[in-house]
Amino acid sequence: MWCMRVGGENIEDMISVVGLGRVGLPIAAVAADAGLEVVGVDVDEKKVKMINRGENPIPEEPHLSELVRAHGGNRLKATTSYDDASECDAFIIIVPLLLDDNHTPDTSIFEDAVRSVGRVMKKGAVVVVETTVPPGTTENLVRKWLEEESGLKLGEYYLAHSPERIMTGYSISRLKEFPKVVGGVDEQSGIKAFEIYKKFIPNLHLVSSARVAEFIKIMEGCYRDVNIALASELFKLANELGIDFHEARKYANHEYCHVHLPSTGVGGHCIPVYPWFLIKEMEKRERLNYARLLRTARELNDEMVNYWAERIVLECKKINKPLKEVKICIKGLTFRKGVRELNHSRNIVLAKLLMNNGLNVFVYDEMFNKEKIEELGFRWIEPKDADIVFDTFELRTILNK
Amino acid sequence: MWCMRVGGENIEDMISVVGLGRVGLPIAAVAADAGLEVVGVDVDEKKVKMINRGENPIPEEPHLSELVRAHGGNRLKATTSYDDASECDAFIIIVPLLLDDNHTPDTSIFEDAVRSVGRVMKKGAVVVVETTVPPGTTENLVRKWLEEESGLKLGEYYLAHSPERIMTGYSISRLKEFPKVVGGVDEQSGIKAFEIYKKFIPNLHLVSSARVAEFIKIMEGCYRDVNIALASELFKLANELGIDFHEARKYANHEYCHVHLPSTGVGGHCIPVYPWFLIKEMEKRERLNYARLLRTARELNDEMVNYWAERIVLECKKINKPLKEVKICIKGLTFRKGVRELNHSRNIVLAKLLMNNGLNVFVYDEMFNKEKIEELGFRWIEPKDADIVFDTFELRTILNK
Repeated sequence: MWCMRVGGENIEDMISVVGLGRVGLPIAAVAADAGLEVVGVDVDEKKVKMINRGENPIPEEPHLSELVRAHGGNRLKATTSYDDASECDAFIIIVPLLLDDNHTPDTSIFEDAVRSVGRVMKKGAVVVVETTVPPGTTENLVRKWLEEESGLKLGEYYLAHSPERIMTGYSISRLKEFPKVVGGVDEQSGIKAFEIYKKFIPNLHLVSSARVAEFIKIMEGCYRDVNIALASELFKLANELGIDFHEARKYANHEYCHVHLPSTGVGGHCIPVYPWFLIKEMEKRERLNYARLLRTARELNDEMVNYWAERIVLECKKINKPLKEVKICIKGLTFRKGVRELNHSRNIVLAKLLMNNGLNVFVYDEMFNKEKIEELGFRWIEPKDADIVFDTFELRTILNK
Repeated sequence: MWCMRVGGENIEDMISVVGLGRVGLPIAAVAADAGLEVVGVDVDEKKVKMINRGENPIPEEPHLSELVRAHGGNRLKATTSYDDASECDAFIIIVPLLLDDNHTPDTSIFEDAVRSVGRVMKKGAVVVVETTVPPGTTENLVRKWLEEESGLKLGEYYLAHSPERIMTGYSISRLKEFPKVVGGVDEQSGIKAFEIYKKFIPNLHLVSSARVAEFIKIMEGCYRDVNIALASELFKLANELGIDFHEARKYANHEYCHVHLPSTGVGGHCIPVYPWFLIKEMEKRERLNYARLLRTARELNDEMVNYWAERIVLECKKINKPLKEVKICIKGLTFRKGVRELNHSRNIVLAKLLMNNGLNVFVYDEMFNKEKIEELGFRWIEPKDADIVFDTFELRTILNK
């Protein structure tokens, strides 16, 4: 096995990163660049081969290609087999945790990864969860799964949480500059995890527990979700009152005021997901009122597609054509500009909503070609050929040519 | 009449400030300090006399006393009579606009001031509303009232809105540094008002309409109200989950995340009032859903006293005394630390709530003596003599001696 440790000197310098996605690969690459031996585990065989050839599977992520080229197949070895990571002193787990149709956390992929680590980890190993999870998950579920698989008890291994705070498109710079927190399920675990991260994360902070570390990440997501809902609500109000929202926002914002931008809702795999961790936990505890603002904001964000559909229909009616013949172009499907991701895309929902109402809907996105758009079940159009263009990233006006 | 203009040179340099309260007096003093002749109108005869003697009726406001001492009775002349302001070229109206018991704006004091200005103003006068009002108030109600009283038509006089953005305790520095906006009900009005403010406000911006100017101020208040509700909600959630909110907040906050501090609700005459302007307007328009987040936040903030009452009772039960004998000290009644104001004080509501439940409640506030506390219907205590101290400005813990 090619991941075998060679020297005895850097005894803690071999780590595994479990999950080589948009967050895991930048972490693995930065750790390798800092001099650690990194074993990256991923289920995707094609991706694993690319990385080992020094090819970056996420070429749009700035600075990542240089790192993968420099370390892929050398200090950064990718594999589909957990066995190749058995010698590692630390495991950083960063695989998806999704929501089911009922907004309840679906831990199946996550549990599978944790149990796989439990099966190969050796005594003294440090396991760190980077996946954003509901508070208490690390100390309760992850600990239980690891101990069931490994037969080890806490103290014979160490367990901590360190939430990823990467923003796609800024992953490398975030790891190098942004404050990162780490919290253990016990004191020793926190210290051990801190020591490992310190080797490749400059702006690192030890917090009092894994649970606090988990909550920090969720808190951020909730702040964003509520403030995007607030911006959308203020946008609707301004529009209703005949006020230019963007002009007002420009002067309202200052050191103590941070009104966000309105949107068609909130997409991506972070912000629309994390509030549900708290809402669902409170539902279980019969304290639903404790998450009332979070729930209202979540609902409002999800309902924004209805507001925009109505606005678009109103614009269509101004055009001298039968309503169902007006060519509508929904421009931009990705959840953020310049990011090639469709998770929780609200504009897919918006386009389908308009289609289901019999309107003449087309789609354009500079990140995807005609074939990909058609694969998603839409008709492609160049914005210049449409009667109306709804530009997600430019909500100021619906362009009516 | 002693306010008569003397020279012909500074033909636009005589202004009236209507309302010499915590906002109006600093504006009047700063304008006088910049060299304008200022006629301050207020209903309070005692205050008027003090100002004319150079005595500051709001001594706790930093730097205000120097200005009143320097200009009171000279360039800043106070009066109870609008007739003394009849020669002024501009009128800045900054009197209270309150809510009635149904949260509907009560414009009676405000209308009275506007009509009084309408009765004395001369042709060519510029009227600027600084009072925060529901959007559209300046161009609709204020215009109507002024024209009914003066017989003038827009163009024969000018009308604008420039929302005060003063924070008690920082009034003078805010006027000197903070961005201030001004918007006219027509283009000429905006320009005229801008020219006058430019003489004493360095950081001044002309916006496209009075309505936008009105909305800017309300938007700020709504941002604060929703974010205080969010902080309180996250505090409750953290506490329920056994997480130290303040530790988590410290690391959650950064350039893009501004989680506020939890509270017993929101007091003062600004933040808890402004969201209602929008909520009530949407109620009228049967678009209540457009203000749903604002309303939820408002309700949550108002309900926080119930949460704290329950928490205090739980703490009382830990003390080895019959519940109704535990001496509870509610420390701090004012809506903000160091500010001698009780408007919308949520701690008065909290203290009364506990009293109505038969608990042994006392009150302490460093801004008020024993007599004043008793006048408010409370028993006074020194915190050291209580069994439990609930410190509004330090919500981390309920001190249990």
